[in-house]
Amino acid sequence: MRVLSRVVVKVPTKITIAGEHAVVYGVPAVAAAIPRFILITMSLRSDNRIVVETQGLYARLSRVALDRSSDSVESLASEDDARRALSYVTTALRLCEEFLGVGERGYDVYIESDLPASIGLGTSAAISVGTIAGCLKLRGGDPEEYRVRVAELGWRTELEVQGAASPMDTFTTALGGIRYIDPGAGSVDRIATWIAPAKPIPLVVGYTPRRGTTAELVAKVRRLRSSAPQLFDRVMEVIGDIANAIRRAIEVGDLELLGRLVTVNHGLLEALGVVDREHSLIIHSLLEAGALGAKTSGAGSGGAFLAIAPSADKAGEIAIVAKGLGATVVATGIYPRGFSVEGQRPRPRPRSSLS
Amino acid sequence: MRVLSRVVVKVPTKITIAGEHAVVYGVPAVAAAIPRFILITMSLRSDNRIVVETQGLYARLSRVALDRSSDSVESLASEDDARRALSYVTTALRLCEEFLGVGERGYDVYIESDLPASIGLGTSAAISVGTIAGCLKLRGGDPEEYRVRVAELGWRTELEVQGAASPMDTFTTALGGIRYIDPGAGSVDRIATWIAPAKPIPLVVGYTPRRGTTAELVAKVRRLRSSAPQLFDRVMEVIGDIANAIRRAIEVGDLELLGRLVTVNHGLLEALGVVDREHSLIIHSLLEAGALGAKTSGAGSGGAFLAIAPSADKAGEIAIVAKGLGATVVATGIYPRGFSVEGQRPRPRPRSSLS
Repeated sequence: MRVLSRVVVKVPTKITIAGEHAVVYGVPAVAAAIPRFILITMSLRSDNRIVVETQGLYARLSRVALDRSSDSVESLASEDDARRALSYVTTALRLCEEFLGVGERGYDVYIESDLPASIGLGTSAAISVGTIAGCLKLRGGDPEEYRVRVAELGWRTELEVQGAASPMDTFTTALGGIRYIDPGAGSVDRIATWIAPAKPIPLVVGYTPRRGTTAELVAKVRRLRSSAPQLFDRVMEVIGDIANAIRRAIEVGDLELLGRLVTVNHGLLEALGVVDREHSLIIHSLLEAGALGAKTSGAGSGGAFLAIAPSADKAGEIAIVAKGLGATVVATGIYPRGFSVEGQRPRPRPRSSLS
Repeated sequence: MRVLSRVVVKVPTKITIAGEHAVVYGVPAVAAAIPRFILITMSLRSDNRIVVETQGLYARLSRVALDRSSDSVESLASEDDARRALSYVTTALRLCEEFLGVGERGYDVYIESDLPASIGLGTSAAISVGTIAGCLKLRGGDPEEYRVRVAELGWRTELEVQGAASPMDTFTTALGGIRYIDPGAGSVDRIATWIAPAKPIPLVVGYTPRRGTTAELVAKVRRLRSSAPQLFDRVMEVIGDIANAIRRAIEVGDLELLGRLVTVNHGLLEALGVVDREHSLIIHSLLEAGALGAKTSGAGSGGAFLAIAPSADKAGEIAIVAKGLGATVVATGIYPRGFSVEGQRPRPRPRSSLS
């Protein structure tokens, strides 16, 4: 295989259809890739530096470099922010090199995304997966042939950077389509199973600004668990049941049932206390506007939400209502594929690197 | 015992703390009497007519009479409305007479209430219980000595008029305090158990106008049951678990846990699809205003709601927020007793009866 000097990786983001929070406690979840992408352009450098440029992703950060020999960071933003942004990229590159058994190199990594981070659409997973895929391609591997391995390395990237991570985001953005994630499955290959949808799902995906952090919300859920452990376990089991029922509804193409189940899952997120007032208003309004179901998606307190529409036309109307309520709509459908890698890039090259 | 010519029965209304909808499917529920009363003034007539005057309860109906001999209704409102209003009173009177083994008589029944019907505060149960109690007193019984029997006859009244009814409302308004209702209990005496609260509960009870009927909401819940029966059963079990956990939280005086559990129950009502947008906004706002927990109470789509406050002072603030959002606040505490019966009435007699 030809080793390329520059690659462009296009990675879909994702929406959680069922099981956020509960997947942390080992029950199954359902997620889908959506046609809103993160583009990562990568090339090898002649020195040992990792230079990351971002556009539109982190408002405060546009350019940061890590010297791998001295472990020193140059950044226009604060060093903490820089290290956080860099951490996914540098960890992914190291795991890629270790996997291939090749030596340390320098890289230019240019990340384009118009989605904010931490809203539940899997942007950090997409960056991890995309960096792994781009590195494999640059260093002589074939990432599209070994998608599950890319997903696994992306997951390990998130695990190392965050300390804890569900495989949901990395597997869904790497493999695409609608995915059933079973954290209790014995093998990595079986963690994310493709769900064969009996018919297209008119899905509306949007978001509002996040209030608070994912860590705060996970801690809030943990407090509920410690104050009522048995009840909490039952609620987790019910959320797992919903994920399983949603899988079956998608497989048989029962959109109405899918909608109902999605709304039931939303109620359980309300029960966990992670839905904010603005989302509550939006979810109820989308249901009044004709959605078959709607829910908060992701960690909560703002961030992503989704609605199931009875038809593609109706999805357009529901999207208009969501925008009217101040939300940003990012997708009205599911993306059937995972990441893709191109050896050539049709656009102008990113700005020249540091130094 | 002296047979009185006129009695006044004061019946508290009630709020469901946990388990509405689920109690229909046999799981336990918790309810409390609240210090907002229905007054029923009753006297025997010399003829065989039941004359019901209402003040403030049914906007369209102020006065209606049933001739028990001819079964004909005279009313200022439509006959259907009249029969519905009369039906609780006439059924209760018949059950009272049958229970005592006494003959049919005519009655004047004057009902005062400033609460609308069908908002989940148990007004029809209070009318049933109050009519039973007043009839027993007028016909020589001792209703306050046999409260459980009054509750049971009130429940039978609701069963006959509505076709189906949980014992929750009639037992709670008859017996007072905080009640644990177990529809699966073997004996009537054990259906409603008094919960000994370890400390006073600063409770805020309010309501918004109802949209749709209880029957429509019960049917909506039944549709969810038929589309996902196993999941539905699990949700019902979880609601039963919440009711049991709430009972324990009240018994040990853990207000914070009580609040959390109440909010979890609200989430499950959202899951059942019976919470409307206005309630959702109010519940979230009361939580932001410092409530330890808040929930829709009763059948849903508007109607009653409650919040648990950390203190009596804070309950006042939360009530102000609820009013600011357009709700009517009806109580800020729990009423420890059930109905009471007086032989004399301190106020002027109601207007003279028909004909």
